[in-house]
Amino acid sequence: MRADVIRFDLPDPGDVSALAGAIDAGRVDPGRIVAIIGKTHGNGLVNDYTRGYLTQSLLKLLAARTGEAEAGLQARIPMVFSGGVEGVLSPHFIVFAVHDDEDAPTEPGLAVATAMTPPLGPEDLGRQRQIDLTAAAVEEAMARADIHSPDDVHFVQVKGPAFAQADLAGAADGLASDDPGKLMGFCRAASAIGVARALGEVPAAEANEAAVLRDFSVRSNVASCSAGLEVSCNEVIVIGMAPGWSGPLAIAHAPMADALDVAAVHHALAGVGLAAAPQLAAGDAARLRAVFVKGEAARSGLIRGRGHTMLNDGDIDQQRHIRAALGAVVAATLGETQLFVSGGAEHQGPAGGGLVAVIAERT
Amino acid sequence: MRADVIRFDLPDPGDVSALAGAIDAGRVDPGRIVAIIGKTHGNGLVNDYTRGYLTQSLLKLLAARTGEAEAGLQARIPMVFSGGVEGVLSPHFIVFAVHDDEDAPTEPGLAVATAMTPPLGPEDLGRQRQIDLTAAAVEEAMARADIHSPDDVHFVQVKGPAFAQADLAGAADGLASDDPGKLMGFCRAASAIGVARALGEVPAAEANEAAVLRDFSVRSNVASCSAGLEVSCNEVIVIGMAPGWSGPLAIAHAPMADALDVAAVHHALAGVGLAAAPQLAAGDAARLRAVFVKGEAARSGLIRGRGHTMLNDGDIDQQRHIRAALGAVVAATLGETQLFVSGGAEHQGPAGGGLVAVIAERT
Amino acid sequence: MRADVIRFDLPDPGDVSALAGAIDAGRVDPGRIVAIIGKTHGNGLVNDYTRGYLTQSLLKLLAARTGEAEAGLQARIPMVFSGGVEGVLSPHFIVFAVHDDEDAPTEPGLAVATAMTPPLGPEDLGRQRQIDLTAAAVEEAMARADIHSPDDVHFVQVKGPAFAQADLAGAADGLASDDPGKLMGFCRAASAIGVARALGEVPAAEANEAAVLRDFSVRSNVASCSAGLEVSCNEVIVIGMAPGWSGPLAIAHAPMADALDVAAVHHALAGVGLAAAPQLAAGDAARLRAVFVKGEAARSGLIRGRGHTMLNDGDIDQQRHIRAALGAVVAATLGETQLFVSGGAEHQGPAGGGLVAVIAERT
Amino acid sequence: MRADVIRFDLPDPGDVSALAGAIDAGRVDPGRIVAIIGKTHGNGLVNDYTRGYLTQSLLKLLAARTGEAEAGLQARIPMVFSGGVEGVLSPHFIVFAVHDDEDAPTEPGLAVATAMTPPLGPEDLGRQRQIDLTAAAVEEAMARADIHSPDDVHFVQVKGPAFAQADLAGAADGLASDDPGKLMGFCRAASAIGVARALGEVPAAEANEAAVLRDFSVRSNVASCSAGLEVSCNEVIVIGMAPGWSGPLAIAHAPMADALDVAAVHHALAGVGLAAAPQLAAGDAARLRAVFVKGEAARSGLIRGRGHTMLNDGDIDQQRHIRAALGAVVAATLGETQLFVSGGAEHQGPAGGGLVAVIAERT
Repeated sequence: MRADVIRFDLPDPGDVSALAGAIDAGRVDPGRIVAIIGKTHGNGLVNDYTRGYLTQSLLKLLAARTGEAEAGLQARIPMVFSGGVEGVLSPHFIVFAVHDDEDAPTEPGLAVATAMTPPLGPEDLGRQRQIDLTAAAVEEAMARADIHSPDDVHFVQVKGPAFAQADLAGAADGLASDDPGKLMGFCRAASAIGVARALGEVPAAEANEAAVLRDFSVRSNVASCSAGLEVSCNEVIVIGMAPGWSGPLAIAHAPMADALDVAAVHHALAGVGLAAAPQLAAGDAARLRAVFVKGEAARSGLIRGRGHTMLNDGDIDQQRHIRAALGAVVAATLGETQLFVSGGAEHQGPAGGGLVAVIAERT
Repeated sequence: MRADVIRFDLPDPGDVSALAGAIDAGRVDPGRIVAIIGKTHGNGLVNDYTRGYLTQSLLKLLAARTGEAEAGLQARIPMVFSGGVEGVLSPHFIVFAVHDDEDAPTEPGLAVATAMTPPLGPEDLGRQRQIDLTAAAVEEAMARADIHSPDDVHFVQVKGPAFAQADLAGAADGLASDDPGKLMGFCRAASAIGVARALGEVPAAEANEAAVLRDFSVRSNVASCSAGLEVSCNEVIVIGMAPGWSGPLAIAHAPMADALDVAAVHHALAGVGLAAAPQLAAGDAARLRAVFVKGEAARSGLIRGRGHTMLNDGDIDQQRHIRAALGAVVAATLGETQLFVSGGAEHQGPAGGGLVAVIAERT
Repeated sequence: MRADVIRFDLPDPGDVSALAGAIDAGRVDPGRIVAIIGKTHGNGLVNDYTRGYLTQSLLKLLAARTGEAEAGLQARIPMVFSGGVEGVLSPHFIVFAVHDDEDAPTEPGLAVATAMTPPLGPEDLGRQRQIDLTAAAVEEAMARADIHSPDDVHFVQVKGPAFAQADLAGAADGLASDDPGKLMGFCRAASAIGVARALGEVPAAEANEAAVLRDFSVRSNVASCSAGLEVSCNEVIVIGMAPGWSGPLAIAHAPMADALDVAAVHHALAGVGLAAAPQLAAGDAARLRAVFVKGEAARSGLIRGRGHTMLNDGDIDQQRHIRAALGAVVAATLGETQLFVSGGAEHQGPAGGGLVAVIAERT
Repeated sequence: MRADVIRFDLPDPGDVSALAGAIDAGRVDPGRIVAIIGKTHGNGLVNDYTRGYLTQSLLKLLAARTGEAEAGLQARIPMVFSGGVEGVLSPHFIVFAVHDDEDAPTEPGLAVATAMTPPLGPEDLGRQRQIDLTAAAVEEAMARADIHSPDDVHFVQVKGPAFAQADLAGAADGLASDDPGKLMGFCRAASAIGVARALGEVPAAEANEAAVLRDFSVRSNVASCSAGLEVSCNEVIVIGMAPGWSGPLAIAHAPMADALDVAAVHHALAGVGLAAAPQLAAGDAARLRAVFVKGEAARSGLIRGRGHTMLNDGDIDQQRHIRAALGAVVAATLGETQLFVSGGAEHQGPAGGGLVAVIAERT
């Protein structure tokens, strides 16, 4: 098998003409698409409707091109969109397609597979059930990708549900939070702990509800978790390297110790055979297929001993601040702004830092 | 003479205790202070009152410690504060003090001097009168600093007036703009062109009103211009290297071609004898006394060919986006977040880019 | 003929199930829909994608229910959505349908008709061509509605194009503004002047480009103009009272002198036979089918002599402020929050004020 | 005794020249000032520095005019400033002064007195200690005002501490919340319950920590509670009617059932002998000395059965939305925009509603 990873411009969440053109030109076989990840124009918070808009736009396109019903496409293809292209970031989406390949691969190649949990309600978010179901879905996707060692998993994207205030008001008691934005944090946190458990990054006994938003040493260095009104279960995409996969692509990752951890970006680049000195040359930047970054504003209120103001700000949400900053830090090294940078990194990479993963064409 | 440059934490615009402590400990002689530049907590736009708040706090402190009247201090010491510490940036202020020095300097040292234009009204902003008065003030400050060649000027900070809507409504016709935020842009633009003219960066004939916000090739690579409700004329601070000045400090600068121009940061560092590979070592970062960055969201809507969204955003002002991004780009190279990063770089550095200047202790 | 006006909840721009249910229940004949006006969740500014999202959602629904192609529906049915449900406002959309009616009407009834201008480019916005084409479209729609006297026109909704920065960067010189948000203002202004000219509210000679955003005495008291990325010409909806129309509905309107002009709301209510003392009784509020409000933050910076801060705010756009305020003023009188309140009232109603129009079931 | 209540324009938090003028003209005796309440230009959230700025400006003025030390003034005069003048609201501050009056009053007059709790740390906020100390301070202020019946108390303003992220990070475990904004909510909630207990609005046994942000039936109809970085204890101002007080002023209040409860505004007006039909005549509006409004976005997500979006919004804080709306609702009835409208009405008035209090010159 061979995994293709193709990145498209997104001028507007309603404009998926770049993918339409690629399909019409035969460069993408829509029936082979297994996942789509993207960065949209909205605020990345509860009232970000650009994620749902892009989902609707893509489903419409794919239904027209494949003849499949939208419901079937939605059940088959995880679409994980994160709002927020602050600062230099550029809206885009990344299509993952899997092809049969008759050649026997001579070395491990990029492997991609997906799985979905059963539906999750507001009462599941941040709870043990979400942790357990996410872990099971990661294991299922690893099995599908034929990845046997957790060391070969370099990135796990999870998108879970969010709920608007009106839905929460009608929900049963016992929600982890009755604040829509805060409940998104619980959703991300439990999802990340589920990934950590599936990959053995933490012992199963410690991957429990009690750690959620409390013990940030319980974490995954490859999990990137989002939440949005537009999904109703945890959608899981596992990306790694595996022997049965061919093709020129590779993935590598590195945890980021803090928001200024440029060394981590260089480390991930090295993993795919690239070097920035201090910025990737344009030719090398063209080899980048997808870059994923997760991070958060340090809860200590400090970065390298200096106070930051992101957590006190009532005008700009902390996630928007940190996406702008991390996006620029990574873009400065890569010379590329179409980066999937996502805030809300609870239990995803070191506390106060995050993680970076790079998919590139091998040199 | 010897110029001292000392940076202080600013936990709150009303908390200048760090400077108070330094004065009380004898580390700063308040009578020797010639200028203060700082980065405050506000939005950096019209309704940013943190600049005025810090001004009031500092005047109160300095009046108490020097016995001078606040009005006299205000007339003597330019205080240039720029709001907006988006992303990783950290609020701080930088005190410039000038001391007599009996030793004859053996090589050029850091030189600082100031000047102020006559009062400017709303009708002056963006107009020839502002350009001309600013140019004259720059020349006056250069003369005071005993800097004879424009090549020895590495940074010129200008702070000009802004006006709230109520003031504009009562102003005469013929304002460059009746929008308070847009008028701030005119103020910055004419100020920058004034600097460019004084330094010979553009021929005097081209440094005229017609170029304001129209011809961005008319620019200065060392001007950093801000505007705020709290000042009523153009306050000018010229910083460079000059033979009559002693001390361990040096300044260097570089224009930034775009928001990802990391090479410019390395170039400015090299000018003060520092190297980042890819990030300044902690010991070297400790040598940094002040870092100034100006930049803007590219009017083309593109950074290296990719669309950015900063100029379409109705929720976060473009200046807040670009400060977050540029601040992170420079912080990633320096390992330091107390950077004076300012948006609104009209005619300041290359269009779509900006400039960076570094004051550091020489190695 | 008989015009039906039905209002639907909009829980999410992707959720038009309320209309789907009404169609399926036979309460709405989708083939009879002539226009849809709605208030969506976004910021109402350039980067508001909820308008396009709702358009896509409705086109998808109507195409599925009518069998018509989406392009045909889009050409036939003006869909005018305004983002921004600040404060108490509630997202909703209003469907206008026109039915044949065999009974000869005994008195004038609610009349609705639409027209569209040819496509408009960025260079047309704020210009004479937009004024002229809009005026022609209003006349065309009046003719279709069989409204002969301008006095019988009580509301004209216009939606014109907006352009993101990337589109403007590539446009020819001579744009009224190269700022996307400001260009939206030019679009609204020229559209309003076009309406004023068609209705004889101003002499044709004064309805020219020179007045745009300059002479606010050139205005229409029934025009409500918006702009958005999702349309490419001026879509015009004319609503009034005409002899050939039957049914229980009526419309009335009143100009608002300022943001606190509660008397105007009472005046418009009186026009449809309703009275609030001081608030409409619940039973009377249930008679409301659609309420349209346009207004703006007073350019003087004053409301009844007191300073307001809306035009100085860098965190919340003035349109969001005024929508929150006007929406609450009108909701307080009506006891109803599903109001179409729109900012950006250049040349629409008195300067610093705006207008209100009410469609209700006659008592 | 006689309480004077004088309202001043606040063009800028650093501009208290209106009060300076009144003092210099002999209209205000600065030594007689007992409290100042005001509405400033900021966002009313954690990073609102306009409250501290105005405090510093007033202390500076009063110290200069009275010769008292700023510390003494600060200990003596509660200064309660709430940020946020969204929509039509206008920045202002209200000075309360108490004078000896030789005439024996013939009827009860406006009575004002203050008290302060001991310092409160982050660990006290939302806790029993804050409830108890606030209740004690209210009782102390009532005693000072010589108000014996809780029925004669019409408004209690409390301002308690807030803490920025950096302060919380260093605090002990067991904070009610480690989110600075959320902790402000706990502070307001416990303060309100303290008022309710002191006034017997709820039985003492129910006025406990367990109710904080949980049982909203535990509430006060006269409490208005704020929090800010600029204070370090709960400052309490009690306003009512009492026999020993003379003068033309009176106060009345009414709970608001929801954000559209216009009847409550009319009810409060009636209590001071004024009537709006539907808006106060200009002559009557001139009798208004101070108007206080507290309210909140309904947690149900609904206002009169219609969905609102205030609690889902990641761009504009819910408090800014509700202040804009409530301010406009009350301004529409009063014809006056200098209203002290404050969000964050936890346990202050009915849940989803709030309260209004009016001080006016009696007719």
